[in-house]
Amino acid sequence: MLGKIEHLGIAVKDLEKANETYEKLLGRKPYKNEEVASEHVITSFFKSGENKIELLAATHKDSAIAKYIEKRGEGIHHVAFQVDNIKEELNRLEKEGFSILNKEPKKGADNKLVAFIHPKTTNGVLVELCQEIEE
Amino acid sequence: MLGKIEHLGIAVKDLEKANETYEKLLGRKPYKNEEVASEHVITSFFKSGENKIELLAATHKDSAIAKYIEKRGEGIHHVAFQVDNIKEELNRLEKEGFSILNKEPKKGADNKLVAFIHPKTTNGVLVELCQEIEE
Repeated sequence: MLGKIEHLGIAVKDLEKANETYEKLLGRKPYKNEEVASEHVITSFFKSGENKIELLAATHKDSAIAKYIEKRGEGIHHVAFQVDNIKEELNRLEKEGFSILNKEPKKGADNKLVAFIHPKTTNGVLVELCQEIEE
Repeated sequence: MLGKIEHLGIAVKDLEKANETYEKLLGRKPYKNEEVASEHVITSFFKSGENKIELLAATHKDSAIAKYIEKRGEGIHHVAFQVDNIKEELNRLEKEGFSILNKEPKKGADNKLVAFIHPKTTNGVLVELCQEIEE
């Protein structure tokens, strides 16, 4: 079973300008910035209740975020749910008929193991599962 | 200042099928269904931590949800933030340069007064503000 919404990921063109916009909107500053070099993205995080809002900008034209913006424009890119055991949950969802994009979870931003479900099986929503990496 | 994410609104074609999909995904049933006749939509709500996930399907071709799906396909339609005083918050955001779609809040689903911010000023994200209606 999926846990709470861990974060909402928003694809933006210019991270600095988007940080200013979301600071005005939410009334608070991002609490961290992080580059995920493997995904060619830079990110910033805002707290929002028990959730986070993650802004993502591409650092390379081959980034999934660059391709998304080219195709659909800026906007909400994914919703991430917290899970305790990502492999168990991926197995469950695969059996339920969801199309899993990463059968082997990968290291994402914010010290998480992450995997995605293809939007074609979730009414157009790119769903991320994420599990905190325990050191 | 905006409060927590109250809900995430997902535009779907067929509410009954989408309910089945999200029941499998989230591992729980919707806790209510509601028609918002003024908006030509039927909705269902799932609890997710302190947030809700609202599935929205059109009941008429002139519904904003029908038009959204025709243009962009199914997917995340809006994110709604809880506010204590919607009029005050709309004034603040208008002064900050956001484009307010409903200067006069309207009655939405789930016993809320709601107003939307145009995605062109929020990096492509349709942002809803919602305030609980006190009886």
